[in-house]
Amino acid sequence: MDTLDTLETPVLLLERTRLDDNLARLREHLRPWPHLTLRPHMKTAKCVEVARLAAGEGGPVTVSTLHEAEYLADHGFDDILYAVGLSAGKLPRLGRLAARVRHMGVILDNMAAARALVAFHDQGGPRLPALIEIDTDGHRSGLRPDQGELIDIGEVLDAAGLLDGVLTHAGESYGSTSEADLERYAALERAGVVKAADRLRAAGLACRVVSVGSTPTALYGQDFTSVTEVRAGVYMFQDLVMAGAGVCTPADLALSVLCTVIGHQEQKGWVIVDAGWMALSRDRGTQKQRVDQGYGLVCDLDGRLIDDLIVLSANQEHGVIADRNGAPVDPARFPFGARLRILPNHACATAAQHGAYTVVKDGVVIDRWARERGW
Amino acid sequence: MDTLDTLETPVLLLERTRLDDNLARLREHLRPWPHLTLRPHMKTAKCVEVARLAAGEGGPVTVSTLHEAEYLADHGFDDILYAVGLSAGKLPRLGRLAARVRHMGVILDNMAAARALVAFHDQGGPRLPALIEIDTDGHRSGLRPDQGELIDIGEVLDAAGLLDGVLTHAGESYGSTSEADLERYAALERAGVVKAADRLRAAGLACRVVSVGSTPTALYGQDFTSVTEVRAGVYMFQDLVMAGAGVCTPADLALSVLCTVIGHQEQKGWVIVDAGWMALSRDRGTQKQRVDQGYGLVCDLDGRLIDDLIVLSANQEHGVIADRNGAPVDPARFPFGARLRILPNHACATAAQHGAYTVVKDGVVIDRWARERGW
Repeated sequence: MDTLDTLETPVLLLERTRLDDNLARLREHLRPWPHLTLRPHMKTAKCVEVARLAAGEGGPVTVSTLHEAEYLADHGFDDILYAVGLSAGKLPRLGRLAARVRHMGVILDNMAAARALVAFHDQGGPRLPALIEIDTDGHRSGLRPDQGELIDIGEVLDAAGLLDGVLTHAGESYGSTSEADLERYAALERAGVVKAADRLRAAGLACRVVSVGSTPTALYGQDFTSVTEVRAGVYMFQDLVMAGAGVCTPADLALSVLCTVIGHQEQKGWVIVDAGWMALSRDRGTQKQRVDQGYGLVCDLDGRLIDDLIVLSANQEHGVIADRNGAPVDPARFPFGARLRILPNHACATAAQHGAYTVVKDGVVIDRWARERGW
Repeated sequence: MDTLDTLETPVLLLERTRLDDNLARLREHLRPWPHLTLRPHMKTAKCVEVARLAAGEGGPVTVSTLHEAEYLADHGFDDILYAVGLSAGKLPRLGRLAARVRHMGVILDNMAAARALVAFHDQGGPRLPALIEIDTDGHRSGLRPDQGELIDIGEVLDAAGLLDGVLTHAGESYGSTSEADLERYAALERAGVVKAADRLRAAGLACRVVSVGSTPTALYGQDFTSVTEVRAGVYMFQDLVMAGAGVCTPADLALSVLCTVIGHQEQKGWVIVDAGWMALSRDRGTQKQRVDQGYGLVCDLDGRLIDDLIVLSANQEHGVIADRNGAPVDPARFPFGARLRILPNHACATAAQHGAYTVVKDGVVIDRWARERGW
């Protein structure tokens, strides 16, 4: 089998031990709350082997595309939540999924979507239980917990037997810079979605599920009272954005891109490698954090960080490695043909650039797991 | 067949007429220089149907990965240049390619690479003719035209019969802001690479090929004297970065991402669509230009720009559409289920997020062309 010295580059490596440790960390954190369902988000990994490790055989899982749902259903997962606001055009495919699995859940945040879902069911379509999306931090989608429309939409869904509960995603928690921040976002997320659930119940409406989710708030939530379900995806692999938010350290990152030195720009003190943005992604998620990691941090073959080296810039198939403080890098340290590993800013984006994970343990390639893409 | 109203979203559209017009534009521009070889760069399209339109059956083509080379060789292209600095680890695959095609060229910019190439040939490997990469604008890789090492490397290659010429890529031309800039970069590119060729010839070394390339300099070069070959890739599709550099207008863009409205944030005046960065890419190439286009410009189904709407931000499967000046967007204009088209910042990056092009002409879907990925 190939080794880190012989694999063709660029290639995406997945450190099995770090993956296992990251999965165990969230499970441990949630252990005091045995009533909670952990419904891992497979948008990051898009890989059935990872899904089985994270969720167990069959689920429950969260997905970001219908393709992920179909792929996981093909592999025996039968409890799936499609956690992007539905559109009417996606109902026929969702209906076919619902006919194949035990639970095919959807989310929505507006009356037009609720009416489309109810109409689909009224016209003989399978039941797609819905969670109403709640906006607990002004991040993106969802109704505010105190918004009047919440009850109106709840009534329309409930009358058709399609109201399953409420869901939120604390997207703003990615902007955390301390453990106190992380705990505060988790408390805000819980308070908002529980308030929405309480309002629905006070109006006499069913609200079985109260779902929260984001890697920061899942790992730093101190109180999950009245929450029934936790979703998270990035926690499996972690990344530099999470490290910058204080959620993990670079030593927790399970993904890296193995690359080869193809040249130098001695005048500028640059090392040129064969991993550009096609292999690393264009994600610059650390740009707005306290420490900008460029296109990623540079490690040796053992995964140890090398000084202050970052990927300073990236073209399609070229990465430029430089010292973040501008000190020239001695080409003799990283000669033509030398191999390096790049830690990614954003696991979801970097993984999406690759068709498979090359799984590594103790420096040895132990497996190759394909990953999915598309919609 | 599907229409723009029925296609599942998000999906990548390719306007056939704009593609044809863009291909014709470069051909027309180069027509006064009949000695020039146009060697289109397939890193943008990664699609044999586009390659045949741009280069004709069989080539010549430029590629950015060995996978592209193998894929195009499978489809009858037999004149291929791999235009990323080679590494020794890639020589066996390059050798297998050379055995299948008439011409399999490589590039390099350092003595270690030259020696590895010569050693591969000396040990019975097929001949891989090499171009020495020249740095004409300080952009990334390559030797400066006046660098002493150029002759040393040329001599090593020439002695083994492997020196084919010189090549440059005016990457800095992407920073242009006027036609005068574009012409200046093109003149700089030509002058630098011709100077390198002259130095090699003055040293008694062969220099058959003098290759320049970038979409801005290919389209705005006014003098191709002593140049033998032009490479470019983005020109086929164009993108907002090229429009921002003055190379084209948004009306020339052949790619767009079709998406569907899935909700609104009325308080913020946002429209939420089902095209996030997974469909648009994380590329923010217009961020440093005079006009920052966010994650793309918003068009109606006919491809007409809508007011000042941009994709303000993007999560994995969510795009947030807003007015660039902050005026709230009336949700009634773009209700739940409405369809929009997003023009991309960077054609190479956006296309890379998709497995195929849905080809459109006069609003009708006329074809579906698969595209390749990976290394």
